[in-house]
Amino acid sequence: MAYGADYNPEQWPSDVWHEDVRTMREAGVNIVTLAVFAWARLQPAADRWTFDWLDTLMDLLHDNGIAVDLATATASPPAWLTRAHPEILPVNRHGETLWPGARQHWRPTSPVFRTYALALVDKLARRYAGHPALAAWHISNELGCHNLYDYSDDAAKAFRGWLRGRYGTLDALNHAWGTAFWSQHYGDWEEILPPRLATSYPNPTQQLDFKRFSSDALRDYLCAERDLLRGITPDVPITTNFMVTGESSGMNYAEWAAEVDFVSNDHYVWPGPHAVSELLFSANLTGNLAGGRPWFLMEHSTSAVNWQPVNVPKKQGELARDSLSHVAHGADAVCFFQWRASVAGAEKYHSAMLPHAGTGSAVFRSVVQLGQTLEALAPVVGSRRKPAPVAILFDWTSWWASQQDSHPTERLRYRQEALDWYLAWQQAGVRVDVLPVAAPSDGYNLVVAPVLHVTPPALAKRLTSYVEGGGHLVTTYFSGIVDDNDHIIPGCYPGALRELLGIDIEEMAPLLDDESVSLDNGAVGTMWTDRMEVTDPAVKVLARYASGEQAGRPAITRRPVGGGSASYVSTRLGSVGLAPVIDELAGVAGLRSDLPRGARGRVELAVRRNETEEFWFLINLTAEPVDVDGIEGEILVPIGATRSAGQLTLAERGVVVVRRPRS
Amino acid sequence: MAYGADYNPEQWPSDVWHEDVRTMREAGVNIVTLAVFAWARLQPAADRWTFDWLDTLMDLLHDNGIAVDLATATASPPAWLTRAHPEILPVNRHGETLWPGARQHWRPTSPVFRTYALALVDKLARRYAGHPALAAWHISNELGCHNLYDYSDDAAKAFRGWLRGRYGTLDALNHAWGTAFWSQHYGDWEEILPPRLATSYPNPTQQLDFKRFSSDALRDYLCAERDLLRGITPDVPITTNFMVTGESSGMNYAEWAAEVDFVSNDHYVWPGPHAVSELLFSANLTGNLAGGRPWFLMEHSTSAVNWQPVNVPKKQGELARDSLSHVAHGADAVCFFQWRASVAGAEKYHSAMLPHAGTGSAVFRSVVQLGQTLEALAPVVGSRRKPAPVAILFDWTSWWASQQDSHPTERLRYRQEALDWYLAWQQAGVRVDVLPVAAPSDGYNLVVAPVLHVTPPALAKRLTSYVEGGGHLVTTYFSGIVDDNDHIIPGCYPGALRELLGIDIEEMAPLLDDESVSLDNGAVGTMWTDRMEVTDPAVKVLARYASGEQAGRPAITRRPVGGGSASYVSTRLGSVGLAPVIDELAGVAGLRSDLPRGARGRVELAVRRNETEEFWFLINLTAEPVDVDGIEGEILVPIGATRSAGQLTLAERGVVVVRRPRS
Amino acid sequence: MAYGADYNPEQWPSDVWHEDVRTMREAGVNIVTLAVFAWARLQPAADRWTFDWLDTLMDLLHDNGIAVDLATATASPPAWLTRAHPEILPVNRHGETLWPGARQHWRPTSPVFRTYALALVDKLARRYAGHPALAAWHISNELGCHNLYDYSDDAAKAFRGWLRGRYGTLDALNHAWGTAFWSQHYGDWEEILPPRLATSYPNPTQQLDFKRFSSDALRDYLCAERDLLRGITPDVPITTNFMVTGESSGMNYAEWAAEVDFVSNDHYVWPGPHAVSELLFSANLTGNLAGGRPWFLMEHSTSAVNWQPVNVPKKQGELARDSLSHVAHGADAVCFFQWRASVAGAEKYHSAMLPHAGTGSAVFRSVVQLGQTLEALAPVVGSRRKPAPVAILFDWTSWWASQQDSHPTERLRYRQEALDWYLAWQQAGVRVDVLPVAAPSDGYNLVVAPVLHVTPPALAKRLTSYVEGGGHLVTTYFSGIVDDNDHIIPGCYPGALRELLGIDIEEMAPLLDDESVSLDNGAVGTMWTDRMEVTDPAVKVLARYASGEQAGRPAITRRPVGGGSASYVSTRLGSVGLAPVIDELAGVAGLRSDLPRGARGRVELAVRRNETEEFWFLINLTAEPVDVDGIEGEILVPIGATRSAGQLTLAERGVVVVRRPRS
Repeated sequence: MAYGADYNPEQWPSDVWHEDVRTMREAGVNIVTLAVFAWARLQPAADRWTFDWLDTLMDLLHDNGIAVDLATATASPPAWLTRAHPEILPVNRHGETLWPGARQHWRPTSPVFRTYALALVDKLARRYAGHPALAAWHISNELGCHNLYDYSDDAAKAFRGWLRGRYGTLDALNHAWGTAFWSQHYGDWEEILPPRLATSYPNPTQQLDFKRFSSDALRDYLCAERDLLRGITPDVPITTNFMVTGESSGMNYAEWAAEVDFVSNDHYVWPGPHAVSELLFSANLTGNLAGGRPWFLMEHSTSAVNWQPVNVPKKQGELARDSLSHVAHGADAVCFFQWRASVAGAEKYHSAMLPHAGTGSAVFRSVVQLGQTLEALAPVVGSRRKPAPVAILFDWTSWWASQQDSHPTERLRYRQEALDWYLAWQQAGVRVDVLPVAAPSDGYNLVVAPVLHVTPPALAKRLTSYVEGGGHLVTTYFSGIVDDNDHIIPGCYPGALRELLGIDIEEMAPLLDDESVSLDNGAVGTMWTDRMEVTDPAVKVLARYASGEQAGRPAITRRPVGGGSASYVSTRLGSVGLAPVIDELAGVAGLRSDLPRGARGRVELAVRRNETEEFWFLINLTAEPVDVDGIEGEILVPIGATRSAGQLTLAERGVVVVRRPRS
Repeated sequence: MAYGADYNPEQWPSDVWHEDVRTMREAGVNIVTLAVFAWARLQPAADRWTFDWLDTLMDLLHDNGIAVDLATATASPPAWLTRAHPEILPVNRHGETLWPGARQHWRPTSPVFRTYALALVDKLARRYAGHPALAAWHISNELGCHNLYDYSDDAAKAFRGWLRGRYGTLDALNHAWGTAFWSQHYGDWEEILPPRLATSYPNPTQQLDFKRFSSDALRDYLCAERDLLRGITPDVPITTNFMVTGESSGMNYAEWAAEVDFVSNDHYVWPGPHAVSELLFSANLTGNLAGGRPWFLMEHSTSAVNWQPVNVPKKQGELARDSLSHVAHGADAVCFFQWRASVAGAEKYHSAMLPHAGTGSAVFRSVVQLGQTLEALAPVVGSRRKPAPVAILFDWTSWWASQQDSHPTERLRYRQEALDWYLAWQQAGVRVDVLPVAAPSDGYNLVVAPVLHVTPPALAKRLTSYVEGGGHLVTTYFSGIVDDNDHIIPGCYPGALRELLGIDIEEMAPLLDDESVSLDNGAVGTMWTDRMEVTDPAVKVLARYASGEQAGRPAITRRPVGGGSASYVSTRLGSVGLAPVIDELAGVAGLRSDLPRGARGRVELAVRRNETEEFWFLINLTAEPVDVDGIEGEILVPIGATRSAGQLTLAERGVVVVRRPRS
Repeated sequence: MAYGADYNPEQWPSDVWHEDVRTMREAGVNIVTLAVFAWARLQPAADRWTFDWLDTLMDLLHDNGIAVDLATATASPPAWLTRAHPEILPVNRHGETLWPGARQHWRPTSPVFRTYALALVDKLARRYAGHPALAAWHISNELGCHNLYDYSDDAAKAFRGWLRGRYGTLDALNHAWGTAFWSQHYGDWEEILPPRLATSYPNPTQQLDFKRFSSDALRDYLCAERDLLRGITPDVPITTNFMVTGESSGMNYAEWAAEVDFVSNDHYVWPGPHAVSELLFSANLTGNLAGGRPWFLMEHSTSAVNWQPVNVPKKQGELARDSLSHVAHGADAVCFFQWRASVAGAEKYHSAMLPHAGTGSAVFRSVVQLGQTLEALAPVVGSRRKPAPVAILFDWTSWWASQQDSHPTERLRYRQEALDWYLAWQQAGVRVDVLPVAAPSDGYNLVVAPVLHVTPPALAKRLTSYVEGGGHLVTTYFSGIVDDNDHIIPGCYPGALRELLGIDIEEMAPLLDDESVSLDNGAVGTMWTDRMEVTDPAVKVLARYASGEQAGRPAITRRPVGGGSASYVSTRLGSVGLAPVIDELAGVAGLRSDLPRGARGRVELAVRRNETEEFWFLINLTAEPVDVDGIEGEILVPIGATRSAGQLTLAERGVVVVRRPRS
């Protein structure tokens, strides 16, 4: 199992490097990411290159058995470059230039930036092409973290090019954007602009396309670096660190994943009641972005971060619990930002493997212990995620489109609804995959499509075939509403799915912030309801509204279709309110928990497997010990876990990995 | 009664047009507003005009008996124009350009814009001058909705011109703006700027004048289109749609109303406990802007809008109730935005007469039913609002001035105080007019002047004469404070009215957000109090403060003046707290409710009349049925209303129109 | 005792001037500040000067025995200047120009502005050099109130010059700023910019240095005016009005104080439970900025201000109470903004000595009475603050640095923590000085260093010596963390003080907004905790955490060091929670209250003294009468105070000044 961190030795005099490497070995570190922010150090002026310090480090690391995931160092342009070429600086929606002072101050579409950046990549790749420490290339860093939406003239030009590629003709674009309304017709490509600050709501399809374009522009940049590297070092695998974490939504990683040789992810925890579940959700999704193959946890934190309003340190045991939660969902690497805590700069209050307090600290002791734990997990390396019986479809386009302005409600949170479903299945003890919408879902007994807002005909057809083939589909409010152009599919809602679901919705009826409605199954809905009717007599109404404007109307429905079924949930229920729906659907789809009853909802079960074995990861989700009966197998790693008389007990923050024969 | 909608056929292929017209007839539609956003379609390039499609539609509509309120199509400039002339784009207070992408992205003062816009108006007017469908001209659209406050150099230049017109000399301007303070003296007209982003609070009179100027600049633009149209089609009446609705404050419609041949209004409901009353207040004010003559409800919604944070659909019955509430206050037309719900663009989630769900929907059924109702109201057409015995003076200048910065409190809401009084009179069952301050108020028994902040000598004199002539005046905190230049009238407050009121206020004493005060009549005051004393022994103290810093001091006073009186309310009481004041004043002024006691405060009564008849509109304001005894007459329209044994019962959202002989 | 106001006669016709002067005499006014905003009046065009009106006023005031604190009139540049030189206008972080319209719209670093401003100062100084009314020079006005942070190109250039002065070499700057991280290395001075709007958190040392630079740039401007004045009128004392008040943090007055001949301050009260204590804290700090010497209260208000969200007038008695509270802490002048209330302009709702209501008003009566009171305080004039036994160290650099972004928590409020300690000592009845950190603290029995975040070696050494010399030091969370470059002092926290305190902190553990922790002494901590251990067995744990993640760990510690001690408080306790700490420390340090037990925490005691006498100021802090036993001496001023049978009773808002022999 790979174990390590971002290593930014530029911050330290060279005598510290030796201490670093010695201590890394003590901690079990076997890989580091180098040179992420090294551009200014590698190229101190347009015509000056200084690689010697990096040579020294590459050698030193290699001599100590530590591999290098070498960054292309293009993440943050140096001051000489932005002074010479201020036209590479991003411009925000308000027309304000984003100046140097922080990092990632470059326009994704700037040809000038690209020229300089690729020159650096070329130099770097040629220099270290044959270096034995070089294990992988790490392109840029967290692409899009700060510069995703650029409204500069470069962006405008590139946006036009992208639109030409998408639409071919202005007629097609005018149709797609609905420019017949509000007198927005375009007669010349040059008239088109990014959705800059406007008098009112900019055209929604323009907004959606700008999101698509912005994600694509960075992907295009990613590919430019990749192609250059592949030409020079065809055998070195290439990655870039994604940010599948929290509300970070701008990069459509489902489309990016295919561009890299292996998927990497950065994940940071936000404190809150569902912090661990959010982590597991993100790890699960990352594992599925990687197609079930092992992936690389490129960054997380040993303790507090520095960029939240209040940065809480991790509690005892969270470091290991969080790390193994990623491994549970397929990570074969556990890395941190960063190795040694900075004493200066914007991230000096970010925790590290080696904290300010030094090697005598509890954090460092946990780091060393985690190194040993990961060693014990060597048998897991290379194993793949075992698919779950249930999939939650995750769709970046629907995420983007469903949260746009001038909608029925501004309160809708796409990812939160998906997470609610994840929690509900967790509660039921049934494993679930968070699956990019375009991935094949045929093998799943049941598919959840929360807020599948954008449902082009092909997708609607695919879901219909899935149901007709015996699958069980459940979807929610604001699904099936628009096509790929964000055009409403006319007729009753949800236009793309109403036949499949056997329902007609005349009006969507969002709830005000202080409103909620009761359902006759005891659940409480918030945020959304629908004025809905059943159109197919075969439809079973699972729950009706018992209060509010829709009282008496169906709230949750299920339409049997052959051996399959199509269900609809018309309000936001939250994970607790979803429990009866989950029960009903699990029953219909014949799903059973692999966990003993007492452990359901209290333990996350994730399974990896190779050709002969399975590795069951059991993670305590609660703040109390949990007893787990009858899980057979060899305990590979017991963290806060004890077994006596066939009963496994997981302490708070406990994690256990059980090795079993493949079933 | 006119019935229809904005019709934006540009969004649809021509085969839909025929279906539209057929369905309009089904709904009883007899007028549509056409071409509001048609500029790009009518003039696809600077030198290209395409009127054929509009010819077709004009003919088609006419052939089907549907009249056209033809928009001048200047509301939203096309992309080719803003590309060729980016100098027409508005600039906000921060110096940021407002780019195309939405609508109404033009500077009201741009000579370039005006040249292009008037050329379009000219072409359009000449083409359709004699068309039989042409019933009215609809200038632009919701003038000032997004581009009211423009800080561009064009605006600066026009502002200077406007100031020259207002003040004549720089000395007069320097005096009016009080530039002797803060070293703001102007020695040259060219030094003057709009109140752009500054280091602190910009000069208040500069701010107030910029508001006046901005309203005037749009009015001036309105007149430019109007004059051109009048030259070509002298017999076609001209209108533009006002926005007397909610907190929309920037356009001084009291001054605009005289510029149009008939008043039109757009009104949208915000959900909340006083939503209907706000609608009635707005309709009432619109009716009085129109001088009591019939007016045109140009836009409202059949159900949800798309631009509020949460867009709630209308409940069953609200569509009719809201429509008839406007008719009750003088509307002879009920129109909606828009005919057919869009499937693309920023307003696609805005409800329409023909919703996405189609003609089978409840909304469409309500629309058809409303068409029939309006037909039954034919006898009402042409009748005028019957003046009420009470007037609430409404003053745009006081609205603007009283809510400026660096005031005793930022919490003051001018329109809310006026609405509170409206509610209080509603509660008492006494009809009230919301009257532009400059309108004659002599005929009213009682005049309420809430927050009449700006009180130039002529106004103070007029109010004094009114009282001396036997009228009853009641005014509130922060009234009578400043003159037309926003200069405080020195001496005790309220300088302009202290003699009339017989009081002296040494200090205004606003309350903190968590503070309230008790009055000895049981009422509770918030937001404001005054350190006040009675100066005329004849003054009757209606209530004193019983708590807080002013405990023991007068809170509400009334000074008898001959047969009239002048009263003052020094705190915010809200509609409930105003009830005793209303009672007292109604008694003094000899006002009696036309409603039976049980219906007061539960039903709005509005009366229209022609030479021989009266039409009593009774609108249930509550969420329960209301019984109304002894209202005689022929029930013209009973919506949710039943009569048995002389008792009329109004269901929730019920509206009844009773035709009676003119009393 | 000096008594007066800002006097802005430019606002009034000259006949009012005579009435003003007459009324000033009635009120006991003996000094006014003139010409603060007179630039446009003195220099109506670049080449035109009009001093006659000011001549008249200087003569008039002198003839009436009123001295003049003559402003240099440079606070607000006239319109002709900003039109001719828009390049003097400040630019904010977003790149937006701050336009004229308000006041103080000039870049502190603009050479053009300085040329014009100094020409004015030169003219003015030469003209009034020998005028008998001229008592002092008042440079500009509230320097930095609106234009402190300017990001213009002028500022960028000056910032570079300042940085060259601070660091000498780019290497030193690169080290100090930690530019090795995030690729921020500078290779040329010209690459350096102010921390303009960036993609993420700008470099923290760049931010801190920009704050230092911005304060210094204004100080440099202050000195430029001062040096010019000193050359012309070497004998006229020079001041400028500071703003030691509330959260106004940008100007490091500890460094400015030495630049003026006497310290002046402007203070305004914010309503709230600790309003008086904040005033006393500010006055105390101002007195210590002045080195204990008398200072000048240049501005406060007779009643309401105009710039808070809700501007509450002063209650009866507050005017005198507030004025004397400043005198108690060393003010020998009580002045107001402004003499006569404006009727126009941005400050027309700001109270004044002569309010709109005129001389018959309660405010004016209080003003006259205060004049008499101040006359009775003549014996106090020239006396100095008697140092307290306790000092609270106040450090602008720590204020700036501790509240920067990307920290453990955004919730930390430096000044609030200092104020909490002030309140706690007040509660204990022990006098305390709020002392600029660089002032000598050797004479104090006990020193509190709240959030002494920036602790360079010399400061740490000084504190250590203080303790080793028998002093008692107490410091708090987030103290001793960074050096002058905002670099974390490595090893356990608090690096600079851990040996002295005998503790090691591994991790700082801020609390979420809804979290609090119990201590085993009954106190409750919020906002912050530390993961801390005692390293010196001599350390006494004063309280431990009884709940939360740190339960069982030390929360408050004291390490005896010879006769002295060093204590640490690791959480935010608020003034009430600090009481047990205060008790413990007061006992250890042998501190006793000068107040009888019943008066402690209910009365502020401040003492001034001359060579033979002491003046005890007793100020009621509560909303009730307070009895004070056994305070001997002559009652010089009894405001709301009565004495009977050796018992002094202070009414609410009562203040008494007792003259006693020097002890």
